[in-house]
Amino acid sequence: MRIALDAMGTDSRPLSDIAGGVLAANEFGDTIVLVGDQQQIEAELKNHAVNSGKVEILHAPVDIAMDAKPTDVIKSAATSSIHVALDAVKKGEVDAFVTMGNTGAVHAIATLKTLRRIPGVKRPVLSALFPVNNHRMIFLDVGANTDVKPEWVTQFAVMGSIYAKLVLKYPKPRIALLSNGAEETKGNLLIREASELMRRSKMNFVGNVEPVQLMTSVADVIVMDGFVGNIVLKMFEATAHYVATLIRQEFRNDVLSMLGGALAKPAFNRIRQQVDTSEIGGAPLLGVNGVVIIGHGQNSAVGIKNAIQQARAAVRENVIGAIRNGIAQEAQ
Amino acid sequence: MRIALDAMGTDSRPLSDIAGGVLAANEFGDTIVLVGDQQQIEAELKNHAVNSGKVEILHAPVDIAMDAKPTDVIKSAATSSIHVALDAVKKGEVDAFVTMGNTGAVHAIATLKTLRRIPGVKRPVLSALFPVNNHRMIFLDVGANTDVKPEWVTQFAVMGSIYAKLVLKYPKPRIALLSNGAEETKGNLLIREASELMRRSKMNFVGNVEPVQLMTSVADVIVMDGFVGNIVLKMFEATAHYVATLIRQEFRNDVLSMLGGALAKPAFNRIRQQVDTSEIGGAPLLGVNGVVIIGHGQNSAVGIKNAIQQARAAVRENVIGAIRNGIAQEAQ
Repeated sequence: MRIALDAMGTDSRPLSDIAGGVLAANEFGDTIVLVGDQQQIEAELKNHAVNSGKVEILHAPVDIAMDAKPTDVIKSAATSSIHVALDAVKKGEVDAFVTMGNTGAVHAIATLKTLRRIPGVKRPVLSALFPVNNHRMIFLDVGANTDVKPEWVTQFAVMGSIYAKLVLKYPKPRIALLSNGAEETKGNLLIREASELMRRSKMNFVGNVEPVQLMTSVADVIVMDGFVGNIVLKMFEATAHYVATLIRQEFRNDVLSMLGGALAKPAFNRIRQQVDTSEIGGAPLLGVNGVVIIGHGQNSAVGIKNAIQQARAAVRENVIGAIRNGIAQEAQ
Repeated sequence: MRIALDAMGTDSRPLSDIAGGVLAANEFGDTIVLVGDQQQIEAELKNHAVNSGKVEILHAPVDIAMDAKPTDVIKSAATSSIHVALDAVKKGEVDAFVTMGNTGAVHAIATLKTLRRIPGVKRPVLSALFPVNNHRMIFLDVGANTDVKPEWVTQFAVMGSIYAKLVLKYPKPRIALLSNGAEETKGNLLIREASELMRRSKMNFVGNVEPVQLMTSVADVIVMDGFVGNIVLKMFEATAHYVATLIRQEFRNDVLSMLGGALAKPAFNRIRQQVDTSEIGGAPLLGVNGVVIIGHGQNSAVGIKNAIQQARAAVRENVIGAIRNGIAQEAQ
């Protein structure tokens, strides 16, 4: 298998990206194609030993800033690492693309300029994998579409469910809509209409869930619009970080607490791992004609390797073919 | 001052409610009018000593269940404690109403059957006080209106800002819209349009904020639609509770951590207080013709006393008159 990895994705580009790529090449025995500035990549590769796998370079001189707007990105030259890599997926030169770069740019270039939509897909959708009590849920949309229609929501559910089954290995993924209450009468207009559509469909729809239920693994595929999804994800991260900061502050307040905190350090480290979404590595952009996995800019080499492993599973299980069939069946 | 307190509000009705009412009467020297079943209240009052203040009873035989739907509540008899108390506010027999009861029922009965809207108010709005790093923000809407128009959002901001100034004592409250990013270009259609309206207004609008900024006290009045607001509030509570549960579990995992946890117990208690929204007691329903403060059903007597203190401040500072003027000026 050949997987393109954006060498210019993380905040510490190209260091973590290349380290993660080499780690994956050695562990999986695949070919990792590093996409970015050839000279920079060659220089950094000298610090690594590639054993069982293979590492190639695909030159792309332009670097897209993390805060560049999708509209500007679209107009810019087609020589950015994201554009060059997605072109390679489109031409079949590589099987998938993995990046820790600018999510909006990846979404825009994939949807409008390179891979384009799978036939019948109304809107491609960004997902996130959300781990609670060691149960992984796929959340979508987490930011691609801020204003959505009920029939887009049902497609998000179809695509998320296929990914949950083939890659996350849930035999019969349970689909839920995120709402402000579990009752059918709750929700805004979008959720009430989407809920009605989903109840009438053949999907394994288990109903609406509210935030507290996200913590109890009642469903595997959690669907919402991209505005709410983005805010909910950021609220989880911000709150977990806030509580952690409170704990650090409080533990400095008196000698007994300081001692207590020191003794409990291993416990705190285990907690951090459970709340940290970067361990998972990345999550798919679904609905475009190719496997694309996007991860956090703060990802470590291990996180990047994990993102690449997800891309491998998606290619091996033919997620794209399954979505093509799923969307075609839904249209009938 | 005479304040009506729902005796049938909390989950432990009428025990905590009456205890909170007596606490407030003794501390503030006001008259607390307990609204609910006379016999039950009289029996429970025998367990309390009323000193400096005064406690009266207003009989209301019907008890509204916590899970009753607003539509059913509207049709039900006008003899529930909520309905009787709001009627008393309307007739001027009491100055304010405080309840830990069914929020949807209070909103529906106040808006449609008793107090009704202040002239010019498009939609009354539910608020919540949200404490982060000892900075209190007022969030609104947190659930009254799931589908809202941009001009309603600007009214939420006007009303929240008046409350923040008069009751929370911010000299010049900073208003922000909750969005999926701080940039003007971010947001869904509602937020982009509301943001435009607010930038053109004379309000002290500081722009859009995303969840991580909520933890850094960048604004005092945070405005959003009631669907998003309800989910965001529930997400904060669910995440804080989840992290706390992880900590408890991890601390049972090995002897050193257990010892550490025991030593750090005072630190954990301080943290719990900082994350616990019930200390604040309650938050106002704004836009109706009367002071109404609604709190959590799990509130303790102290939380209820704090809610009553907010009602007193709102009456003393004439929040209703200020909103009437604010809305009239906005219409010009």
